[in-house]
Order: sequence, then C-alpha cells, then structure tokens
Amino acid sequence: MRQALAEAAFELFLERGFEQTTVDDIVARAGVGRRSFFRYFPSKEDVVFPDHEGCLAEMTALLEGAGGRDPVAAVCDAARLVMLMYAANPEFSVRRYRMTREVPGLRCYELSVVRRYERVLAGHLRERYAGAPDGDLRAEVVAAAVVAAHNNGLRTWLRSGGEGDVESLVDHALGLVRQAWGDGSGSPAGRRPEDDVVVLVARKGTPVWRVVQSVESALEG
Amino acid sequence: MRQALAEAAFELFLERGFEQTTVDDIVARAGVGRRSFFRYFPSKEDVVFPDHEGCLAEMTALLEGAGGRDPVAAVCDAARLVMLMYAANPEFSVRRYRMTREVPGLRCYELSVVRRYERVLAGHLRERYAGAPDGDLRAEVVAAAVVAAHNNGLRTWLRSGGEGDVESLVDHALGLVRQAWGDGSGSPAGRRPEDDVVVLVARKGTPVWRVVQSVESALEG
Repeated sequence: MRQALAEAAFELFLERGFEQTTVDDIVARAGVGRRSFFRYFPSKEDVVFPDHEGCLAEMTALLEGAGGRDPVAAVCDAARLVMLMYAANPEFSVRRYRMTREVPGLRCYELSVVRRYERVLAGHLRERYAGAPDGDLRAEVVAAAVVAAHNNGLRTWLRSGGEGDVESLVDHALGLVRQAWGDGSGSPAGRRPEDDVVVLVARKGTPVWRVVQSVESALEG
Repeated sequence: MRQALAEAAFELFLERGFEQTTVDDIVARAGVGRRSFFRYFPSKEDVVFPDHEGCLAEMTALLEGAGGRDPVAAVCDAARLVMLMYAANPEFSVRRYRMTREVPGLRCYELSVVRRYERVLAGHLRERYAGAPDGDLRAEVVAAAVVAAHNNGLRTWLRSGGEGDVESLVDHALGLVRQAWGDGSGSPAGRRPEDDVVVLVARKGTPVWRVVQSVESALEG
C-alpha cells in the first residue's frame, strides 16, 4: 500500500508536476481512500521521500551500537546509510533529485530532512565528546562536515545520472573529514596502531593543514 | 517604508501568530497599499528576515576583496557579518529566534537562507582551491563547518536571550574551524611566522586530533 501510493504519486508528479498534483489525484490513481494516504504520509512532500524515517531509525540504532569506536568513523558509517538507501534504487533517486531541484517546496523539505540527519549525528558526537573542551561545538562542526562531505559525493553521483560507483565517491569524500577530525582508528584500510615512533620537524609558521597532511601520511606509513 | 512594514508585520506576528497574519493585515497596520508590500518583500516569510539579502550582498563584496588572504580566514570573516547583523538588534533577533523555532514555515525559510550563505562561502573557497586535489569537496566541507561553527556561537547567544558577548562566542567557535582547516595566517592574535623549529614526537596510532592540538599549540607558542 505504502509503496503503491509512493509510485502513484511519483507518476503523477512527473506527468503534471508536483504543485499541480493533489492528494486526491494520488489516491485516485492508487485506487485507495484519502485516509489511507494520511495513514502512511503526513503530507504530499513526505511521499517523495518515503524512506527517510526508516533511515533515521537505522542510523540511530547503528550509533547506539557504536560502543567505543572512533566517533568520527561511527558517524561517517551512519551517514553512509543514506547513500546506501539512494544507491538501492538509482533510477528513482536520480528522478527525485531532478524533481527536487525544480520544486521549492521539495527543496525546503529536503533541507529539513538533511538537518534531521545532521542532528542525529551531532547528538551522538555530543555524547561521545561530553566533558571534552568545546565538546558541543566540535560535535556540531564535525556533524556538519560529515553531512557536507557525504552530500558532495552523493550529489556528484546524482548529477551524473547515477553512473559510476557512489560508494567510492562518498567514502572518498568522508575520508577528508576523517583525516581532519577522526582519531585515525578503524579506517577502511584497517590501519592499526603500532609502536614505531614518528618524528616530525616543522618550521614555525608552516600552514597547519600541511603539517596535518604530513602527520597523517606518517601515521599511515 | 521597508522598516515600517517589517515592524508592523512583527507586531502582528507576535499578537496573532505568524500563520494567522495575512499580508492584508500587515499593510493595513502599516497604512500602505498591498503593492508596496510586494515591492519590498517577495513573501510573508521575507519580512521576518528583512536584512538577509543585504547581508548576502555584503558577504559577496567582502569575499571579492579578499585577495590572497587565507581562504578559511576570509570565509570566517564573511560569516561574521551575519552575527554582526544579529548583534545590531539583539531584542529583535531574540524574538525572531523564538518565533522561528515555533513556525515550521519560518524554520524552512531559515534553512534556505543558511544554505544560501553556505553556498556563497563555498563558491569563494571553490575559486581559491581551484586546481587543488579535492578542491570542490574541500570547499563544501569547510563552508559547512564554518556555518555550523558560526551558528553554534550565534545560537548560544540567542538561547541565552541575547546576554553576553556574541562576538567572542562566534569568534571562539570559528577558531576551531580555522585550527583544523586554515593556513594559520591572519589569526586574530596576529601570530607571525618565525624561524624557530618545533620538533614533535608522536607514537604511531596517536589520535590525529591530539597530534593536531600539540602541533597547533607548539606553532602558537
């Protein structure tokens, strides 16, 4: 029923446009009553993004089981769930992406959803950074960076019409955030702490990001 | 005229609620015609945030004049313009913050505005990082981090009812992003490159953020 409503709605949005389609049109096409629609979807906007509630719940569950892992790695993995949801149905995801860009109401809805994901990630980080200096601030900044990186990778894929490997694109993008903010453990390459000692020599005034790059590559070596 | 309309609208929003106030109510209160309203504001939402267009323009101008400065420092300064706009009228800003949290339509509008600021900052960074590896990605991630940090500081101030020093709050928050992503030049403390050499010893597997903290404090020393 839920899926049938979503499909009927989407057909109509593509035929007539989002604004020109009413809930009555959708239930008529799906052959169900108006009440059924609102049992599944609070609004017309929700039908365009039928899986976000489920994904938010999965994300929360994944983070609850994150235990003592690097918090940044954990929220990156949580963000990947969104990409996996989009990747499960490339054609639908690409069509929706194109429609969303053209309909202001949907853009707004999407921004709200993205913000909800960001809050879930920030909430986890806030707990993990509790007591650390600037813990709340760091939690919000890292969550925003993770979401931006994730969306950069996902959007590249959506813009290309769903061609190429979205997992690699998103993982590469998330890698930049993990490099800057993560603790380096649990990387995809399975890097393990060793007992070697790295000595780094830097001239005062060296750009910090260059120093970080050197440190990172030494620790990876 | 513009200001009179904004004030009339705000009085009514507080008296009756945002949703219950029409544009006709606003123009009646301000004693002007309906056309005048739409000459200044495209919608009822825009009247709640009358200064964002001006601020976006200022931000663009500031970034165009940024020359060869550390790009992260430049976008942090650009983001500060939003804080300064809020700080210019604390009482109005706090009332609006409270109203925005309660009205979904305004929340959505605010998210769109925040996104526009983020795009201006990302656009500048994209130009500055042109040709660098992952330039576009880095631009988007840094812009999102700057906006998140700025908003963390600003929100702390708004939540407190506009008490305390919003400039310090926002500058402190932006400092975290500059530490992670900036090149260390043009810091508020006016740190200058010197010729001393810092030697840092780290055990492999040390959390990168701890290394960054040590490097940063050594370079500041």
